[in-house]
Amino acid sequence: REEHITLAHGAGGKATHTLIEGVFLESFRNPALEPLEDGAVIDEMAFTTDSFVVTPLFFPGGDIGDLAVNGTINDLAMCGARPRYLSAGFILEEGFPIAHLRRIAASMAAAAEAAGVHIVTGDTKVVERGKADGCYVVTAGVGTLERPTRLSAAAAQPGDAVIVSGPIGEHGITIMLARGELDIQADLTSDTAPLNELTARLLDACADGDVRCLRDATRGGVATVLNEIAEASKAAIIVNEDIIPVRPDVRGACELLGIDPLYVACEGRMIAIVAQASAEAALTALHSHPLGREAAIVGRVNDDPPGLVLLKTAFGGTRIVDMLVGDPLPRIC
Amino acid sequence: REEHITLAHGAGGKATHTLIEGVFLESFRNPALEPLEDGAVIDEMAFTTDSFVVTPLFFPGGDIGDLAVNGTINDLAMCGARPRYLSAGFILEEGFPIAHLRRIAASMAAAAEAAGVHIVTGDTKVVERGKADGCYVVTAGVGTLERPTRLSAAAAQPGDAVIVSGPIGEHGITIMLARGELDIQADLTSDTAPLNELTARLLDACADGDVRCLRDATRGGVATVLNEIAEASKAAIIVNEDIIPVRPDVRGACELLGIDPLYVACEGRMIAIVAQASAEAALTALHSHPLGREAAIVGRVNDDPPGLVLLKTAFGGTRIVDMLVGDPLPRIC
Ligand SMILES: Nc1ncnc2c1ncn2[C@@H]1O[C@H](COP(=O)(O)OP(=O)(O)OP(=O)(O)O)[C@@H](O)[C@H]1O
Ligand SMILES: Nc1ncnc2c1ncn2[C@@H]1O[C@H](COP(=O)(O)OP(=O)(O)OP(=O)(O)O)[C@@H](O)[C@H]1O
Ligand SMILES: [Mg+2]
Ligand SMILES: [Mg+2]
Ligand SMILES: [Mg+2]
Ligand SMILES: [Mg+2]
Ligand SMILES: [Mg+2]
Ligand SMILES: [Mg+2]
Repeated sequence: REEHITLAHGAGGKATHTLIEGVFLESFRNPALEPLEDGAVIDEMAFTTDSFVVTPLFFPGGDIGDLAVNGTINDLAMCGARPRYLSAGFILEEGFPIAHLRRIAASMAAAAEAAGVHIVTGDTKVVERGKADGCYVVTAGVGTLERPTRLSAAAAQPGDAVIVSGPIGEHGITIMLARGELDIQADLTSDTAPLNELTARLLDACADGDVRCLRDATRGGVATVLNEIAEASKAAIIVNEDIIPVRPDVRGACELLGIDPLYVACEGRMIAIVAQASAEAALTALHSHPLGREAAIVGRVNDDPPGLVLLKTAFGGTRIVDMLVGDPLPRIC
Repeated sequence: REEHITLAHGAGGKATHTLIEGVFLESFRNPALEPLEDGAVIDEMAFTTDSFVVTPLFFPGGDIGDLAVNGTINDLAMCGARPRYLSAGFILEEGFPIAHLRRIAASMAAAAEAAGVHIVTGDTKVVERGKADGCYVVTAGVGTLERPTRLSAAAAQPGDAVIVSGPIGEHGITIMLARGELDIQADLTSDTAPLNELTARLLDACADGDVRCLRDATRGGVATVLNEIAEASKAAIIVNEDIIPVRPDVRGACELLGIDPLYVACEGRMIAIVAQASAEAALTALHSHPLGREAAIVGRVNDDPPGLVLLKTAFGGTRIVDMLVGDPLPRIC
């Protein structure tokens, strides 16, 4: 048993899950927290939070500000909610340039406006030099549940289609490269984006109850999300490596870094588990939106082996894909 | 115009207000944020957030965990809401002892339970050694508005009574002394406490609309809160130094430190502005609760001079009391 926090505890994979279940769920246990979904659903409301410690603060395609707004919007959208109100907490390091703070606030405002949400409350704390890394941003969000469907990772059923909404891994790789420590050239931008319109279209297009579960593939990547769903639903998930969309620049960087794109965080992609009967309608709905243009059915839910994720590899083999272990890409969000 | 963040920007006084108004309100402006109350009120709901960066993490009377839970409960209570659901975000430094995290989580759970709220969602991030100070905690909270009264700092009216719910400055001084850097002996514990029952009793005891405004006297202390109310209501506030309850140990430490207790943060005390007609009922209600046993009417709202806070001093003089300037006690919450 580990006695100190390691970077892996923040990576979103196995260590994070162990910590959350062993410490936080253990202490806070209640029916709304227990399912450990993207947000809590209480009555007709969804509620969620995320902290952002990404480095660098500004990167191709976005910055910590729109990342924080979109991230919380997405966790609300994954609950099937319409995101409405956000909070914005800042932990600032003494000496942080106010011009940077203005840029971050402006990009938060633009992201909120684009998604139709309002930042209605906030907080601002300052710590001494060397006690933060410029600026951390914490958003929480409230959304309204305006549809009858209740989504849940436990609801995946054998026969359901596994859909990914677009190419994976761009955010994580963009951040890695933006640090400038690697000698890799790639033409990439973060996929940070609000998914609330995409989820609304998807839910509208499918029969009530046919969208079983939505989950944004953030820390831990698609592999971790699929494991969460397999575990919660006690079903197997079988996906085809060949069909999972990965841009060539992401694939190339992943090869050089020795990382599997399945473990790389996205900030504007989601996994949808949809009943077979609605799978084609779901795909059509996703394709109708710019953020879902490259959506693909990448696999199926099966009854066996329960709780596991299997990958049919490009070479024709099949292997078990576990949750993320360790932390190959620290502080990407 | 300052170009970099200083500790004063986090102290809750003038610099904090300038930053919030100049950067955040400027960017995020909307009707729910604009009044800059303790939380945002939207429809029948209140929503608020606070970040906690207190050092040390454990101190006489509490720790960062119950402080974070009570702080958010109190901002909801100040909106006249019943606190219901909290989020818990953690930013952890690599190497932080998991045993400390367990203690913090346990004290959050106990504080939530004591106040009848549930921690339903959370987030856990880790940063490298030297990029945080052990553990920062960010809570957000949602409450329900179950009473017709809408509270607002702008609602204070000439003739209203100014009530303080108990002795001031214990939290801030306790934290200062807990750092062990000062050679001051005092028998003090933090006043961290959930004020939601106290506010419920107060609101029940007063005629609808007679409680004009509630505000917890956190960063910036009572002096800053009174200035916020005077400014928002364009009224004068006149308080009697003699009547403001301050424990001898707080007074003594403040003298040695050269700080006015009016600027020292509390985490379990509030200012209530109450119509004269309900002032006695309000006081009786407060006295009926352990957290309001020493509540006192300490002053009046006047029409002149608009926007200013005047203090009748113990020596019979009168002086203007401004908001907190600078940061005498950094990182007390
Ligand atoms: N400190 C915590 N206290 C309580 N619950 C927590 C805490 N940290 C995480 N959780 C809960 O654990 C689950 C997983 O959290 P996680 O942050 O991994 O999800 P996410 O926000 O969807 O992913 P990401 O943070 O990568 O965007 C959620 O249900 C969340 O509410
Ligand atoms: N970064 C921010 N973005 C948006 N609004 C903010 C931000 N920081 C503070 N605010 C708003 O400014 C007002 C004052 O915030 P402040 O944190 O001082 O209040 P508080 O929480 O009552 O005090 P304390 O933090 O000392 O407990 C609130 O209305 C809050 O929502
Ligand atoms: Mg999520
Ligand atoms: Mg998230
Ligand atoms: Mg605050
Ligand atoms: Mg407050
Ligand atoms: Mg507060
Ligand atoms: Mg999270």
